[in-house]
Amino acid sequence: MRTKAVVGGVGMTRFGKQMDRGLKDLGGEAVHAAAADAGIGLDDIQAAFVGNCAAGTVTGQESIRGQVILDPLGIGRIPIVNVENACASGSTAFYLACAMVTAGIHDTVLALGVEKLSHPDKTVSFAAFAGAVDIEEVQALLAGLAAQVGDAGGSGTGGAGKGRSMFMDIYASAARMHMAKWGTTAEQFAAVAAKNSYHGSLNPRAQFREALSVEDVMQSPMIVPPLTRPMCSPIGDGGAAVIVVSEAKAAALGISRPVRVLSSVLHSGWNHTPGEAGTVELCSKEAYEEAGTGPGDLDVVELHDASAPAEVMMYEALGLCEPGEGGKLAESGDTRLGGRIPVNTSGGLLRKGHPVGATGTAQIVELTEQLRGSSGDRQVNGARIALAQNGGGKKGNDAAAMCVTILQS
Amino acid sequence: MRTKAVVGGVGMTRFGKQMDRGLKDLGGEAVHAAAADAGIGLDDIQAAFVGNCAAGTVTGQESIRGQVILDPLGIGRIPIVNVENACASGSTAFYLACAMVTAGIHDTVLALGVEKLSHPDKTVSFAAFAGAVDIEEVQALLAGLAAQVGDAGGSGTGGAGKGRSMFMDIYASAARMHMAKWGTTAEQFAAVAAKNSYHGSLNPRAQFREALSVEDVMQSPMIVPPLTRPMCSPIGDGGAAVIVVSEAKAAALGISRPVRVLSSVLHSGWNHTPGEAGTVELCSKEAYEEAGTGPGDLDVVELHDASAPAEVMMYEALGLCEPGEGGKLAESGDTRLGGRIPVNTSGGLLRKGHPVGATGTAQIVELTEQLRGSSGDRQVNGARIALAQNGGGKKGNDAAAMCVTILQS
Repeated sequence: MRTKAVVGGVGMTRFGKQMDRGLKDLGGEAVHAAAADAGIGLDDIQAAFVGNCAAGTVTGQESIRGQVILDPLGIGRIPIVNVENACASGSTAFYLACAMVTAGIHDTVLALGVEKLSHPDKTVSFAAFAGAVDIEEVQALLAGLAAQVGDAGGSGTGGAGKGRSMFMDIYASAARMHMAKWGTTAEQFAAVAAKNSYHGSLNPRAQFREALSVEDVMQSPMIVPPLTRPMCSPIGDGGAAVIVVSEAKAAALGISRPVRVLSSVLHSGWNHTPGEAGTVELCSKEAYEEAGTGPGDLDVVELHDASAPAEVMMYEALGLCEPGEGGKLAESGDTRLGGRIPVNTSGGLLRKGHPVGATGTAQIVELTEQLRGSSGDRQVNGARIALAQNGGGKKGNDAAAMCVTILQS
Repeated sequence: MRTKAVVGGVGMTRFGKQMDRGLKDLGGEAVHAAAADAGIGLDDIQAAFVGNCAAGTVTGQESIRGQVILDPLGIGRIPIVNVENACASGSTAFYLACAMVTAGIHDTVLALGVEKLSHPDKTVSFAAFAGAVDIEEVQALLAGLAAQVGDAGGSGTGGAGKGRSMFMDIYASAARMHMAKWGTTAEQFAAVAAKNSYHGSLNPRAQFREALSVEDVMQSPMIVPPLTRPMCSPIGDGGAAVIVVSEAKAAALGISRPVRVLSSVLHSGWNHTPGEAGTVELCSKEAYEEAGTGPGDLDVVELHDASAPAEVMMYEALGLCEPGEGGKLAESGDTRLGGRIPVNTSGGLLRKGHPVGATGTAQIVELTEQLRGSSGDRQVNGARIALAQNGGGKKGNDAAAMCVTILQS
C-alpha cells in the first residue's frame, strides 16, 4: 500500500522483564509519550488499532484488550480495533492506522503495540507462542524440518515443556539448512548477535545493555544447535506507540521534519514450493516498488531478528546482499553502526527485546528517531530512508504474517 | 464512516452446537458460500479480515486464526488481519473491509466471522466470555449494579462456576432497572423471545426452530430473574462471511440488485454518566446521519438481542420508539414479521444463535438477503433499507465495542 501517512509522534517504554507492570501501565506510558511527542492531547486521537499477541494466554484478557488499556487514559468513544498477527501484531496495527489516514477516514490515529510476556511461571510465557502457529500443524512441521536436515534429535518438539519457544527449534532447523546450503558458519550468526549487543549497549530502552564479543556469543550456553542463548530473542514486556497523521495534520502540528510512510505492506504466508520466494521477498518487492526505492537507497533498517540466523536470512530476502551472502555480510561489519547499511541500531529483537505485540511499533519508533536525527549515540548520520520488517507466526513453511514499511524524512 | 462499499456476496453455515466441526470447517463453508454467491473465485479475494472471539480460550488457537482457517482454502499471500472486539468481532471485520474498499485500497475484500464455542466441558465455553470484560473490573461492576437495584442476591457473580455467562447477570440487572424505571414487565421481555422464536422457526439456519408462545417463555426455567432460558442467547458454533466489493467491481460482476453499505460505524464504550447517551445512541446517530436516513426509514433491523431485555432497550436506543416504550413496542407486534418494522427476522441471537465472532457478519447475511428479496418465508415485503446493530464486551457501564451498519438496495 502506497500511503499518504506521516508519523506524527512516537513513544515507547523500556523493554525487558517488568514483572510488576501490567498491560495498562506499559501501554499507557507508550501512548502518553507518543501523544506528547506529536504535540497532541489524548482526546485528539480519532481511532486506535491495538496489537497484542499473548494477553489471552498470559493474563486471561482477550477480546477487548485495547479498550481495557485505553479506557483508563480517558480514550473511549472512538473506534478501537484489537488486531492480532502473532509477532507482527504491532506492525499490522500500524498498517491499518496508515490505511485509515491514507483513506481520509481519520487524520490522527493511534497504533499501539503492547505485550506482557513475563510471568512467574515461565511455562505460561512460552505457552503464548503455541497460539501463534497452526496448533494442528506444528508437530508435522517440526518433524518435516528435522527429516530434511537429517537431524532427528536436534530439533525435537520444543515448546513450553522444554522451557523455550518452539520457534527457536524452527529457526535452528532453518539455520542448519542455511549452513548446509551456503556454508554459513555459527560464527557469522554470532557476529549478528555481537553487533546487536553493541547497538543495544547504546540504547537506554534495550532489555540487555551488555556488549558481547563474537567469542562471548559462541561460548554462551547452547539452546538448540547452532543457537546459543544470545542468538535467541528473550522474553520481555513493553509497549510502543505511534501517532499516525495525515499530511495536513502534520503541517497543522508544525512538524518540522516529518517522517513520511512511503509504503506499508502486509501479506500472509502460504506453503510455498522450495525455491519459491516467500513473504519477505513478496512484501519487500512491493514496498520498494510503491516507495520508488530499492535496497541500495536504504540508510538504516530494523528487521525481525527473532534469532541471529533470521537476520542473516533477512539480509538476503530484503536484497541487502545476494542469496547465500548473508553470513558474509554479517561478519563484514557493513551492518554495524558506521557501516554501509546499519541494521537493528536499536539492538534488535535480540537485545532491545521482543515483547511480541510491541515489536512492530517499536521498529517504527527507532526508525522515526533515526530519520529525525535524534538517535544520539546510535545515530546513523544523514539517514533519510529506512525500512522496517516484522514477521509473525508460522503457516506452512513461511511466516503467517509479514509487514514491510518504508519511511522517509 | 460513509462508505462506497457494496455487499458482493454472503454465505453462512447453520448456527448451533456442532461438536464435530472445527473453525476451519465452519469458516471454510461460509467463505465458499459467500464467494459462490458473489460469483468470484477464492483467488479473487484481495484481503481478509477475520473476526473471532473465543478460539484462544476454547481451542488454544490465538494470533493467526484467520491464516489457519483460510490457508486450507488456498487463500494465502494476501493481507489477512485477525480482529477482536468480543461479540462485535464480526462486524468490526466487516467495518474494516468496508473501509479498505471505500479507500480504494482493494476492491474485493472478505469479512469472515467465525466461532467455535461448544466444548465437551461447558465451563470452557463460558470461560470464553470472561475475556470479553476488563478482567480487573467485572467484579466491581457486578457489585455496583446489584447495589443500584437493591438486589444483593439476584445477580451474584455468575460466570463459569455457575454454568452461565456473567453477561446474563449484567443483562438481568439492567432488565430489573428498566422494569423499575419504566414499568416494563417480564411478559414484554417474553414477547421478544416468542417473536424471535417464531422468526427462527422460519429460518433453516437457526439454532432453534421451535416456535414458543409468551406463556412458554414465561414458564421456562429461570436463569437469573427476570430471565428465563429462552430470554438468553445460547452457546453455539458457526461461520458467516461477506464479500465486500467496490461499486465498480459490483458492476463488473453484473450484480443486478446491489446492496450498498451506506454507513458503517464503530465506536468503543466508555464509563458514561447516568442519563448520558451510550454507544448505541452514538453509533446509530452517526450511522443515520451518514446514510441520510432515520429510524422511520428502516424496513428491517437485525439487532444484538443477546438477551430479550437487550432487544427492548435497543428499540429505544436505535430510535424505533421513545425512551421507556420498548416494552410496549415488543408486545405490540410491530416488530414481528408483517408488522411495521420487523426486527430480528433471522430469529436473532436468541434463536438463530450467537456464535460470538460470527454474529455481526451473520446479521449482514440476513439483511442482504432481505434487501434482495430472497428471504423466502421470512421476507419483509419491499424491504429497501436495513440496519444492523452488534455490540461486544463490557467496558465501564457500556459495551466495549459497538457497530451500526445501514444497508440499502
